[in-house]
Amino acid sequence: MRHQPLGERLALFSDLYELTMAASYFEAEKFEEATFSLFIRQYPSDRAYFVAAGLEEVLRYLETIRFSEADLAYLESTGLFKPRFLDYLKDLRFTGEVYALPEGSIFFKDEPILEVTGPIIEAQLVETFIINAINFQTLIATKASRSSHIAGPRRLVDFSMRRTQGVDAGLKVARASYLAGFIGTSNVLAGKLYEIPIYGTMAHSYITSFEHELDAFRAFARDFPKNTILLIDTYDNIVGAKKAIQVAQEMAARGEKLRGVRLDSGDMAAISIAVRRLFQEAGLDYVQIFASGGFDEFKIARVLEAGGQIDAFGVGTKMGVSADAPYFDIAYKLVKYGTRPVMKLSTGKVTLVDKKQVFRRFDDQGQMQEDTIALRDETIAEATPLLSKVMEKGQLIRPVPSLKDSREFFLQEFARLPEKFKVLHQPPPYPVNISPALQELEGRVEHEIQVTELGQV
Amino acid sequence: MRHQPLGERLALFSDLYELTMAASYFEAEKFEEATFSLFIRQYPSDRAYFVAAGLEEVLRYLETIRFSEADLAYLESTGLFKPRFLDYLKDLRFTGEVYALPEGSIFFKDEPILEVTGPIIEAQLVETFIINAINFQTLIATKASRSSHIAGPRRLVDFSMRRTQGVDAGLKVARASYLAGFIGTSNVLAGKLYEIPIYGTMAHSYITSFEHELDAFRAFARDFPKNTILLIDTYDNIVGAKKAIQVAQEMAARGEKLRGVRLDSGDMAAISIAVRRLFQEAGLDYVQIFASGGFDEFKIARVLEAGGQIDAFGVGTKMGVSADAPYFDIAYKLVKYGTRPVMKLSTGKVTLVDKKQVFRRFDDQGQMQEDTIALRDETIAEATPLLSKVMEKGQLIRPVPSLKDSREFFLQEFARLPEKFKVLHQPPPYPVNISPALQELEGRVEHEIQVTELGQV
Repeated sequence: MRHQPLGERLALFSDLYELTMAASYFEAEKFEEATFSLFIRQYPSDRAYFVAAGLEEVLRYLETIRFSEADLAYLESTGLFKPRFLDYLKDLRFTGEVYALPEGSIFFKDEPILEVTGPIIEAQLVETFIINAINFQTLIATKASRSSHIAGPRRLVDFSMRRTQGVDAGLKVARASYLAGFIGTSNVLAGKLYEIPIYGTMAHSYITSFEHELDAFRAFARDFPKNTILLIDTYDNIVGAKKAIQVAQEMAARGEKLRGVRLDSGDMAAISIAVRRLFQEAGLDYVQIFASGGFDEFKIARVLEAGGQIDAFGVGTKMGVSADAPYFDIAYKLVKYGTRPVMKLSTGKVTLVDKKQVFRRFDDQGQMQEDTIALRDETIAEATPLLSKVMEKGQLIRPVPSLKDSREFFLQEFARLPEKFKVLHQPPPYPVNISPALQELEGRVEHEIQVTELGQV
Repeated sequence: MRHQPLGERLALFSDLYELTMAASYFEAEKFEEATFSLFIRQYPSDRAYFVAAGLEEVLRYLETIRFSEADLAYLESTGLFKPRFLDYLKDLRFTGEVYALPEGSIFFKDEPILEVTGPIIEAQLVETFIINAINFQTLIATKASRSSHIAGPRRLVDFSMRRTQGVDAGLKVARASYLAGFIGTSNVLAGKLYEIPIYGTMAHSYITSFEHELDAFRAFARDFPKNTILLIDTYDNIVGAKKAIQVAQEMAARGEKLRGVRLDSGDMAAISIAVRRLFQEAGLDYVQIFASGGFDEFKIARVLEAGGQIDAFGVGTKMGVSADAPYFDIAYKLVKYGTRPVMKLSTGKVTLVDKKQVFRRFDDQGQMQEDTIALRDETIAEATPLLSKVMEKGQLIRPVPSLKDSREFFLQEFARLPEKFKVLHQPPPYPVNISPALQELEGRVEHEIQVTELGQV
């Protein structure tokens, strides 16, 4: 997967208009510095915060973007581009600057997640990939953090890969859910690429391939004496649990311990309570109950409220596609060209102009209190700036943090977000202010556009 | 993207349990032939049919799956696998047989999309990838076909890539929506890889980078005299349309034709009617109106019902993530091991046993009338079998159809699906029967399990 650098592999992962606009900038000799800002316009229902993710991939891409001969030959074949522009693309590298929130940061709507500054052609061409990368990992980290929160001390494993939206999504869900507090994934390739712990149990096909369920249980326990989690719902959860007890006792006689059983269908609360009782009665308190099948934060909450006796959850499809909110209203907008702050006025889609910074205030207990979006060079008393410069002249300023370190950072930050913003249904909005200087500039730019473009006075 | 064969790149794109089960089959010397069946258990809301897609990728994967040295080293590092099994994996190739629906087929719930037969280890290991590939492309082809249908003769272009769930999804959405009747995509890499026509207009950043909107319009028209579609909503749709008329008239004076304008926000029906009138009054009937911004089949229907004057739609995020139904309840289940038909009985998740075929009857007008799911070797009078053998001994039986040919096949098949099953809201279910022989076998296997596994008589 990593043989060819990302930016080479994906230089053409771009909307066509990025390239036609670039060609037109080139013809008009527009080479001035532009700043684009990436932000989310609205909360999906039941969300009041976001978890930043995907920055590492964006940086890898920016470091390595270049058009191959084959890419240029394809572009030439479209008949849209002049040879002079294709020659220019051949040598194009990203030479700009990036300010960004570290991965694992908590942020809110309208706040820039990252801002890219560079010659307008470079900063424009990378739009599609940057949106794609940050939107999806942030979407999943946000969704996964909700499961992590509601599950409390219970462990969560990503089980989504079979129904993620493609292969890249399967890998990114494993990464983003781990970042947001999951303990690992079933995804072996993600385990290899990202050094995430991998977990697995067994499928119904394993059970049904044996003439008897008990034979299947015994065979697996023999082959994986330290890692056996028996799937007990193939024919009937309670009958399956009784056979699992028999195998656990056989293992105990050999000095081994059955690690757990997995429930995958039916009324999870009731079944888990019944299964727990059976194991306790058999003196097998150490056997853990693992549950899977349609779990996300909402189902975890329901099953726990109903008294479900579950030690760990396999969280699958609904988290892996963020089923209740499968995309964000995310945008990458030009906010400054040369020395001129710019905006569009399209209905309901106003943009905050110019280079910006986000400042955060914390209360005495270190809990997040309020944010202020300001101009980049403002300072705000007793508030912490959140965006930092991560790339300069197309080069990383410092090494990208490891995924483990970003996960630690997320856990610390998430603990500082007050509980009321984490509730599963209709959380209140977190207070985000616009600094007076930014408001003033915003008003002035809007007024100028109304005069020059719309003929209003 | 295609330097390394898919099956080599993605051998580890697998849930861990596929590998632990394989190791256990290996230890138990279970090498008999197994058949797995892939099917969708339920319709998402407002769906009554599916469009098969993703088969080509599955076949490319099966042809080339192999574990690299690096893959095996990673598996060894987990401590879960014995050297003897890892040696076995080193030489593993897929040697089985595949029956499948051609891409572009219309099919219904419970019907097998494909059935894989081979030594159980091989047929098991490919589960995760097969589900992932077919689920997602089928999801998108199904969603896209609904837009194609409701838009009638108006052209649709895939604009989703910036918010698809990852890079692979961006490519697959372009492919699957083209298969389902779209005319092309904004996705340049998909254009290159799949030979799909590519389309583009311009972004707000292009407009705002110029001091005046009119300057931007003129620059683009000069650079792309044959392919200019002006985005007119940056400051105000109507003011923008008037400037576009000015540029269209300047182009006409040079013997050029403005191709179109794009609307991207606001009340699309009302704005398109007003913009059409302005262009007609200016004698510019040939200028097309292109609309984008939150379109899927539901919004297209609303805008057209309100009299929207739109020639082409950019269909983006909501199609590209299948927002109203972002996954299918799809499963790949063992249905036969050796000579024994098998099933699980898990609550609400019963499987149709054994190797199967789907037969379809058409009425006098060639319209689809009813389907019957039967055992593979049954014949049903005056009905057409839908699954055909596409792979034998791990090799393709015939070349995979081109994407263009599959698109043609889809268009023909879709025309044979009666209108009532295509309505956007609450379509009736299409009739799907189970053959008496399959029903009888199903009952017998279920009874045997109840006796042997659950102790019922």
